Amino acid sequence: MAKRQQSADRTPAPLDGQPHVVIVGAGFGGLACAYALGGSAARVTVVDRRNYNLFVPLLYQVATAALSPADIATPIRRVLARFKNIDVIMAEVVGLDLKAKRVRLADKGHVPFDILVLATGSVYNYFGHEDWARNAPGLKTIDNARSIRGRILQAFEDAEKAGDPDRQAELMTVAIVGGGPTGVEIAGAISELARHSLASDFQRIDPERARILLIEAGPKLLAHFPDPLPAYALKTLQSAGVEVRLNTKVEAIEPAAIRAGGEHIRAATIVWGAGIRGGDGAGWVKAPADHAGRIRVAPDLSVPGTDGIYALGDLASLDQDGKPLPALAQVAKQQGRHLGRALRRSLDHGPPPPAFHFHDRGDTAVIGRHAAVYSIGRLQMAGLLAWLLWALVHVFLLIGVDKRMLVVTQWAWRYLTNERGARLID
Amino acid sequence: MAKRQQSADRTPAPLDGQPHVVIVGAGFGGLACAYALGGSAARVTVVDRRNYNLFVPLLYQVATAALSPADIATPIRRVLARFKNIDVIMAEVVGLDLKAKRVRLADKGHVPFDILVLATGSVYNYFGHEDWARNAPGLKTIDNARSIRGRILQAFEDAEKAGDPDRQAELMTVAIVGGGPTGVEIAGAISELARHSLASDFQRIDPERARILLIEAGPKLLAHFPDPLPAYALKTLQSAGVEVRLNTKVEAIEPAAIRAGGEHIRAATIVWGAGIRGGDGAGWVKAPADHAGRIRVAPDLSVPGTDGIYALGDLASLDQDGKPLPALAQVAKQQGRHLGRALRRSLDHGPPPPAFHFHDRGDTAVIGRHAAVYSIGRLQMAGLLAWLLWALVHVFLLIGVDKRMLVVTQWAWRYLTNERGARLID
Repeated sequence: MAKRQQSADRTPAPLDGQPHVVIVGAGFGGLACAYALGGSAARVTVVDRRNYNLFVPLLYQVATAALSPADIATPIRRVLARFKNIDVIMAEVVGLDLKAKRVRLADKGHVPFDILVLATGSVYNYFGHEDWARNAPGLKTIDNARSIRGRILQAFEDAEKAGDPDRQAELMTVAIVGGGPTGVEIAGAISELARHSLASDFQRIDPERARILLIEAGPKLLAHFPDPLPAYALKTLQSAGVEVRLNTKVEAIEPAAIRAGGEHIRAATIVWGAGIRGGDGAGWVKAPADHAGRIRVAPDLSVPGTDGIYALGDLASLDQDGKPLPALAQVAKQQGRHLGRALRRSLDHGPPPPAFHFHDRGDTAVIGRHAAVYSIGRLQMAGLLAWLLWALVHVFLLIGVDKRMLVVTQWAWRYLTNERGARLID
Repeated sequence: MAKRQQSADRTPAPLDGQPHVVIVGAGFGGLACAYALGGSAARVTVVDRRNYNLFVPLLYQVATAALSPADIATPIRRVLARFKNIDVIMAEVVGLDLKAKRVRLADKGHVPFDILVLATGSVYNYFGHEDWARNAPGLKTIDNARSIRGRILQAFEDAEKAGDPDRQAELMTVAIVGGGPTGVEIAGAISELARHSLASDFQRIDPERARILLIEAGPKLLAHFPDPLPAYALKTLQSAGVEVRLNTKVEAIEPAAIRAGGEHIRAATIVWGAGIRGGDGAGWVKAPADHAGRIRVAPDLSVPGTDGIYALGDLASLDQDGKPLPALAQVAKQQGRHLGRALRRSLDHGPPPPAFHFHDRGDTAVIGRHAAVYSIGRLQMAGLLAWLLWALVHVFLLIGVDKRMLVVTQWAWRYLTNERGARLID
């Protein structure tokens, strides 16, 4: 059955003694790096604990019943199938043996490497309150999205059954922590879900009266966008019925309750979107990290003090023009492609990897129907045109014509009918 | 927040003293019954433990990564939202208080009824070996489908990692128990998945060499179809590489192994599709049941010996022309509509419910690409035309234009590219 014999240590068969590049994580950065190495003389192994690449920017639409998980998930091996020099292994990496130059797997296996690319991304930062995660899930994985979707929909179901108006109010309250893109997007989407999709489906409750709170510690929403976009986001959310609390710190999160700005608010659903930190990979190497636990990489994306180890995407911290690059998909993607191409050249005995330079393609966030913000360089846009651009960019960035068709079909249907097709409680 | 005050016992507000019809289960039968009572003078409450109606005939496509769960699931309250006389409650029913005429819920609540319709469907029959369910899940729920999908895909991932050819062979073996429509459909779909969708995605294994076993205790596949359709199904599956074992009894199911016909076969994935029995509802009433635990109902679908309790669909056993009606969606649907209309008439002081008569709309099962069987009355069809008819009928029966568009899009894409869009391991 084996096409080719495999050694016990899961090294691919030697390919003319070419170095073995191992990429851990097949998100935007890892996949772009693998892709750039596709068809090269290098032997490449991509290791991910999932079998799919997830298009995280649309994950909030899974959490709000607008899309199915599979619409934004593409099998890693399908994307890389055409490159015979790339192996894909579905396994969880638990650490590195730096001396032996190998990656340790949770199933006790290991993968030796000559060059290692760490692209394990970021996780939500609970700023020392990791126990809050249980009551206020972030939005990083399909499990997260399904769990949030289930909580929101179940709360409305429970409210329909509850006799007591106070209990109904509590069930119909959603608190979202963090006024960045994730928080703004999910607040806008939950408002649409309650005020339009669910509006006429209940007999004893009025979903339009759901209370949606967006809590931000700083003085504005979408703080990394230039003015006047933050003010536009605030006004748009408020007119959609979202209660926005700026300059409000979260003091505690309890089961179905949140304490913020001195107030204790009962809320059946709490969603966390308040900042990220470097994921597991940062702990595997002894390298300086920034305040958010991201590895401070050299300009060529190498990890200082290591031999042949690189880091990129949300896991890496790199300054450009005196400012750290943002944790955005486009940064990860450009870094992945840059590193893949550089490694390819250096394997051909070309020059060592040059410094990475980020080309800003613009940044966008959606707030509601006909309402998004778009900013690139000195240009700012808000409203319908930005919304159309947002949609166009996101459809374009999905992997696969089928995913694009499915997403467009569901968006069009939702636009026309306000219905959301994925209202499953799991 | 409450639109209308609710009594502690979850009875809807009285509606001019009209009797309260409670329908337990919103499958094909329960939903059709509710729909027929929509807009009538009756107060109706539909109770289901899920928030969605599931189109079970396409569930095998979720299990084989071709469709997403949401493509075949429609929120019950969305379907019934337009009927202001129908309440929908998401709750698990655990039994009945026959004297007090009320339904008991798992959350300790209860729903009083004047008329009760039991439509709780069927579960897989392990014929006394309920412990086999853990190692050989049936295919009745979204959880089942996700679990089977995950097992199949994970087995190929593990085979890619395994060094040992014997272990690879075991991982790449799927055993399906039962040669009825579910078994035949899933065997055909897994064969397509392995031989076409996954074929070029692996480096160390050849998914085309996957071993797919279909084990049937009786002498033919699709036994309730007239000749020569069973022989056609056998030939078609065999030419797709499925090993069909007829007249073969399953003796034991172990973790990742099955003993059948005296042979012990190691198989990472085992799927059960070998017969059904009446679900929970049958135990709630003291009424005669058939050999498969289905309630023997009177011709008007009432449960003998009870007052105002009816049963329908897979939960009910009813003979017509000397033969029991099959456990098919169309039987449940027709019974639901019949009973709903009859109750509606009798609430208007019309005649008591008349006897149910099933109108056969034909039966169909798909085997593979361009290959299905269709039988209605004396007409039999096999091949391309039956396949097109199968597809047409199934798309037509889906609830909602959006679901139809999504399913057609994914079928067309799969037809053209052999790709399956929902290859997620959860």
